[in-house]
Amino acid sequence: MDFKSSLNSYINIVEEYLHSVLDGREGKIYEAMRYSLYSGGKRIRPVLTLACSDALGGDRDAALAFGCAIEMIHTYSLIHDDLPCMDDDDIRRGKPTNHIVFGEDMAVLAGDALLNMACESVLGANLKNPKRSLTALKVIFNASGAEGMIGGQVLDMDAEVREITAEELKELHYKKTGALIRAAASLGAISSGCDKDTFDEFASSLGLAFQIRDDILDVEGNAEILGKPISSDEKNNKTTYVTLYGLGGAKEILREETENAINSISFLGKKGEFLKELAMYLLNREK
Amino acid sequence: MDFKSSLNSYINIVEEYLHSVLDGREGKIYEAMRYSLYSGGKRIRPVLTLACSDALGGDRDAALAFGCAIEMIHTYSLIHDDLPCMDDDDIRRGKPTNHIVFGEDMAVLAGDALLNMACESVLGANLKNPKRSLTALKVIFNASGAEGMIGGQVLDMDAEVREITAEELKELHYKKTGALIRAAASLGAISSGCDKDTFDEFASSLGLAFQIRDDILDVEGNAEILGKPISSDEKNNKTTYVTLYGLGGAKEILREETENAINSISFLGKKGEFLKELAMYLLNREK
Repeated sequence: MDFKSSLNSYINIVEEYLHSVLDGREGKIYEAMRYSLYSGGKRIRPVLTLACSDALGGDRDAALAFGCAIEMIHTYSLIHDDLPCMDDDDIRRGKPTNHIVFGEDMAVLAGDALLNMACESVLGANLKNPKRSLTALKVIFNASGAEGMIGGQVLDMDAEVREITAEELKELHYKKTGALIRAAASLGAISSGCDKDTFDEFASSLGLAFQIRDDILDVEGNAEILGKPISSDEKNNKTTYVTLYGLGGAKEILREETENAINSISFLGKKGEFLKELAMYLLNREK
Repeated sequence: MDFKSSLNSYINIVEEYLHSVLDGREGKIYEAMRYSLYSGGKRIRPVLTLACSDALGGDRDAALAFGCAIEMIHTYSLIHDDLPCMDDDDIRRGKPTNHIVFGEDMAVLAGDALLNMACESVLGANLKNPKRSLTALKVIFNASGAEGMIGGQVLDMDAEVREITAEELKELHYKKTGALIRAAASLGAISSGCDKDTFDEFASSLGLAFQIRDDILDVEGNAEILGKPISSDEKNNKTTYVTLYGLGGAKEILREETENAINSISFLGKKGEFLKELAMYLLNREK
C-alpha cells in the first residue's frame, strides 16, 4: 500500500472507533462533544500511536483505545482554547467554534466531558493487559496535565503579554503540542510491550517540526485550506519560530528536526517506512 | 473517640494527603489549583470514602487516594461552575472565586488540571492492587462524566430557563451532586475488596438529603456561616425542593431520606456507627 492509502486506512480506523464511542448518545452535551470530535481533524496523534504500535508488532485494540484517548484530550483542549476568555476564536477547521454553536457554558462542559471520556474510554475498552492500561493512563494524563499540555497553555498565555526567548518558546511547544505527540508515540510502544521511551527522540523532533510548520503556515498558508484565518500570531503579537528566526530560518530548523526524527528510527529498518513518510508528509503539509 | 473527633481526624488525613499532592509545586497554575483545593471545603466525599472503607476493614491508602481524587473532581467542578459563563459567582466559602483572583483563562485551566490530577494521583499512588485501581478509576470517571455529574450540570442549566418537574429535579440531583457522593461511598467498598454497590442505597439517600439541605440553607441559612450569599436559587428562578414542596415539605423529605440512609446500613452493626452519625450531622449542618 502506498503512503496515502495507508494513512487513510489508519484515519478510517480512528474515525470508526471515535464514532463507536459517541454515536447514538442522546443529549445536548453529546451533540456538542460530537461536533468538535467529528470535525475533520488530521488525526495525527492516534495515527501516530497506531503506526508506532504496528512498527513494533503491537496490540492494535490497545493502540486504538490509547491513541483515541489522546485525540479526545486534544479536542477538549481546542474547545477550551477557543473560548472567549482564552484565545477567543470563532472559526476552527472551517466551521464555527464550539462555543459559537452551543454557547460558552456548554463548550466548557463539553471540553470537561471529553477529558473525562478519555479516561472512561481506555477503561471501558476491556483490554487484555490491565497493567499496560495503567501505564498508558499514566502516560496520557502526565502528558495532558499541568506538567504537560496545560503547563504549555499557561506558558502560551504568558507569551501573549510579553516577548519570550527562544528557549522559552521551545519549552512552550515541548509542552503545549509536544507532550501529546510524544505521548501518542509512547502509547504505541506501550501497546507492544516495549519501553515507553522507544520513540522519544522521534516524537520530540516530530512534535517540534509540527509546531514550526504551524508557525510557517500562519504566515504563508492559505486560509481556505487551513480552515482558519492566517496572520493570527502577528495579530496577537506572538513570539513564533518565524518572528525569532525569520521564514527562511524557521524552514531550515523544520528540515533539521524532520531529518533528525527520520534518522532516530533507522533501527526499525523497513518497518519504519510509514513513520518516515509521515514525518515527510507533516513537513510539507498545507493544513 | 466521639463523632466530632473522628470526623476531624478523617479531615486531617484528607488535608495532609491533598497537601502532599500539590504543595511545593511552582507556577501560577498550581497556585490557582491550591487556592480552590485548600479553601476549607467540608471534605464530605473523601471522609465518606475513608469511613466506608474503615467500616469494611479496607485498605486505607487506597481509600485515601480514591476519595481525594473525588475531592479534586468536586473542586474542579466548582471552579468551572462559578465561571461568568456558568453561574457567574464571585464568592465561594467566604472567599473570592477562582476566576476573580486568577482570571477566567487561568480558572478554566486550573479546573482542567484538577480533573486531570484526579486521574494522575490515583495512578501515582502506587497502590498494592492494580486491578482495584482500574475499578476505582472506572467508578470515578463514570460518576464525573456526561452520564454523571456533568450530565447533572447540563440538566441544571436547563432548569434555569424553565420550570422542571419533581422527577426531573430528582434526576438532576441524582447526577449533579449524587453521582460523586455515591462514587465516594462505592470507592470505600472497592478499597476493601467488597462489591462496589455495597453502599448504594445509603449513598443515594445521603446524596439526596445533602442536596435538599442545600436547598433549605439557601432559604433559611446564614450567609456568613455559609460563606456565600443566600436566596441565590430564588434570584436565579431555580426549581428546588423548597419551591416544589415548601420548607416544611422539604424538611420532611430530608428526614425521611436520612432515616432511610441510616436504616440501609444496619447490616454493619457497631461498625456503622460513624456513618450513621455522619448522616445525622449532614441533616443538621449549617453550611
